[in-house]
Amino acid sequence: MADSFAMNGGDGLNSYKQNSKYQGEGFDEAKVLLRNSIREKLTIHKNSNATTVTPVFKIADLGCSVGPNTFACVRALIEAVKLEFKAQGFETQLPEFQVFFNDHVANDFNTLFKAFPVDRTYMAAGVPGSFHGRLFPKASMNLMHSSFAVQWLTRVPQEVTKEVSPAWNKGRITYARSESSKVEEAYAAQFARDMEAFFTARSAELADDGLLAILMPCRPEPSLPSESTLMNILECLGDALADMVKEGLLSEAAVDSFNLPIYVPSASEVEVVILLGTKNKNLGFSIERLEEMRFPAKLSSAEEVRVSCLHARAAMEDILCKHFGSDLNVDELFKRYSDKLEEFSKSPRFAHIKNLANLFVLVKRN
Amino acid sequence: MADSFAMNGGDGLNSYKQNSKYQGEGFDEAKVLLRNSIREKLTIHKNSNATTVTPVFKIADLGCSVGPNTFACVRALIEAVKLEFKAQGFETQLPEFQVFFNDHVANDFNTLFKAFPVDRTYMAAGVPGSFHGRLFPKASMNLMHSSFAVQWLTRVPQEVTKEVSPAWNKGRITYARSESSKVEEAYAAQFARDMEAFFTARSAELADDGLLAILMPCRPEPSLPSESTLMNILECLGDALADMVKEGLLSEAAVDSFNLPIYVPSASEVEVVILLGTKNKNLGFSIERLEEMRFPAKLSSAEEVRVSCLHARAAMEDILCKHFGSDLNVDELFKRYSDKLEEFSKSPRFAHIKNLANLFVLVKRN
Repeated sequence: MADSFAMNGGDGLNSYKQNSKYQGEGFDEAKVLLRNSIREKLTIHKNSNATTVTPVFKIADLGCSVGPNTFACVRALIEAVKLEFKAQGFETQLPEFQVFFNDHVANDFNTLFKAFPVDRTYMAAGVPGSFHGRLFPKASMNLMHSSFAVQWLTRVPQEVTKEVSPAWNKGRITYARSESSKVEEAYAAQFARDMEAFFTARSAELADDGLLAILMPCRPEPSLPSESTLMNILECLGDALADMVKEGLLSEAAVDSFNLPIYVPSASEVEVVILLGTKNKNLGFSIERLEEMRFPAKLSSAEEVRVSCLHARAAMEDILCKHFGSDLNVDELFKRYSDKLEEFSKSPRFAHIKNLANLFVLVKRN
Repeated sequence: MADSFAMNGGDGLNSYKQNSKYQGEGFDEAKVLLRNSIREKLTIHKNSNATTVTPVFKIADLGCSVGPNTFACVRALIEAVKLEFKAQGFETQLPEFQVFFNDHVANDFNTLFKAFPVDRTYMAAGVPGSFHGRLFPKASMNLMHSSFAVQWLTRVPQEVTKEVSPAWNKGRITYARSESSKVEEAYAAQFARDMEAFFTARSAELADDGLLAILMPCRPEPSLPSESTLMNILECLGDALADMVKEGLLSEAAVDSFNLPIYVPSASEVEVVILLGTKNKNLGFSIERLEEMRFPAKLSSAEEVRVSCLHARAAMEDILCKHFGSDLNVDELFKRYSDKLEEFSKSPRFAHIKNLANLFVLVKRN
C-alpha cells in the first residue's frame, strides 16, 4: 500500500495555495517551452468523415494540488492547443475541452473545487488517486501534464528504514548526506520503479499521438544524487530534527525512522526510464523534448530564507505530522529549520552546488 | 446566481452519510425497476468497423452527495449494463466504465472520495457544479442517473419572499400550508423552469440513445401541490420556527424570509415538462418509463419520528445555518421539530395524505 500525503489544504498562512510560488515561478519559465512544444508536436486527427475533428479534447493535470498553479497551467495548455487548431485551419472546429484535475485522495479537493476559475472555458472534473496507477480509460486522453509532482515517491524505499540494512539511513531524512551511498542507490531505484509505473499507466491512457508533458525538479549534470541542491536544502530539516532529539524534544527512534519520499533525478536518469520502458515494456513513447533549466537557489537574504521555509512547510507539514503526531511542535521545527537553512546557505557545500534546476520532458504516445 | 446547499458532510452522528436511509430504501425499491428498464432500453452501438463496441461507457450520478447510496446505485447501473452487453453477445467486448460523481461545489467531495469502494470496477471522477447547467461535453455520456436530488430547486421563487407580492409566504417555510395558492403556483413554476434547464443540459450531454434515469419524491395523483405529505412533514419545521419566534428566540423577519427551495411534483407534472421541452426546444427525449411508487409515511412510533428527524436534519442543517447563522440553536430547533412531527402524525390532515411516493422516470435521447 503506497503512502499518500497532501500539500497543506485550505488557504491559510501556511497553506500550499499561498505558498507554491516556487512551483509557480518554475512553471512560468517552462510555460514558453510548453506552449511552443505543444504547438510543434500536436497532431490533430480528422474523424473518418473528414469534416470534423476531435469533438472533445481531454486534458489531465496530474498532481494538481489545490491551485492556483494548476489553473494557470491548464489555461496555458488550452491556449496552446487552440492556437494550433487555428493554425492548422480548424478555427471553426475547435473542440470542447474537458479537464481532469488529479491528486491523491488526501488532497483537499473541496478547496480546489471552490477555486475553479468562474470564467473557465472547459468542463472540469476531479480525479482522486495515485498517478502511479491507472486513472483514466484506455486511449482516452489527449494531453496530460504534471508539474512538480513526480519527484514524490510512492514510498520511502524499504531498505532505508531497516536497521539491519546496509542502506539504513540513521539520523538523516534524505539521501543528501547519508553515511552510505546505498541510500541514494535505494532512492534512485525506487524512483525508477515509480516512474516505470507512471509511464505504464500513461501509455495505456493516452490516445494515439497523445502528449505527456512533465515538469519536475532535477539536478544539473554531471552530479551524484546526493549533490542535489534541493535535497540538501531539505536535509536542513533533518538537522533541525536531530537538534530536537538532542534536546529531548523528540525520540531518536522517531527521527531515525523518518525519511522523505522524495527523489531529484538528473535529466538522463529520466531519459533512461522512458527509453527502457519503451524498449522493454513496449510503452510506445517517443521523447519529443528533454530540457534542463538551471537557476540559482535563492537563499541570500533573510526574506529569501523565510519564503523558502514557508514553501517547505506547506509541502512537508502533512507528512511530518502523520509521522510524528502530536509529539512534534511544528512551529518550533520550522523556526529551527530557518536557522539551519541560513547556516547551510553560507557553507562551502552550498557554494559548490548552489544551482537548482527544473526538467521539462515532452513525450508522445505513438 | 443560484443558491447552493449541501447535505451534512463528514460521517458524524448528524451527517447525511449516516442519515440517508430513506433515500437508500427508496433506491432499493427502484433498483429492480432501474435494472430491468436499463436492460430493456439500452442500445449498444457497434463501431463503424463492426467488430468493437463502445470502448468506454460513461455514467454520471447527478446529486451524488457523499455516499454510500451513490456507490450502491452506480454498482447496480454497471451490473445492468454489463448484463445487457452479455445478453446481446458482447461478453468479450465489455467496455471500461468511467463514472462521474456530480454535486454542488459546496458538497463534501473529500468525504465522498475517501469513501470510494476499493473494489470498484470503474474509473471515477468528481464533477462539482449545478446539474441545472452543463457539466459534460456534448454527446459524451451514455447513462445518467439522479436520485432524490431534482426536488431541490435552484432557488426559492422570488415572489414568495417579497412582502408586496400576492405570493408572499409569511410565517411559512414551504407551500404546504400557505395562505395563498399563489405560493404553490410560484413553486410549481420554479420547478418547471429548473427541470427545463436540467433536461436541456442533459439533452446536450447525452450521446445518441443515451439514457437518463431519475428517481425523486413525488405526490400521488390526483392531489394539489400543497397536499404533498413530504412538504407537510417539512412544514412542521416551520411550526417549530414559529414557536421560537413567539418565545423571542428568533426574529420574525428572519423566519418570514426563510423558505425551503424544495418542490414535490406529481408524475404528470414531470411528464409535461419533458413533453413540452421535447416539443418546444427539440430536446429529443422519449419517455421510456414513468412510474409512481407509493408507500406509507412512517411516523407511527417514537423511533420512526426520531429517524425522520435525523434525516431532515442531515439534509436541512446546512441551509438553515446559512440563513439564520449563529442566532439559531439547531439542537433546540430539531427537538421542537420532533414534537411537531409527532403532533402532525396524529392529525386528521396526516390521516388524509399519509402516503408518500417516489417517481421513477427513464428517458432516452433520440
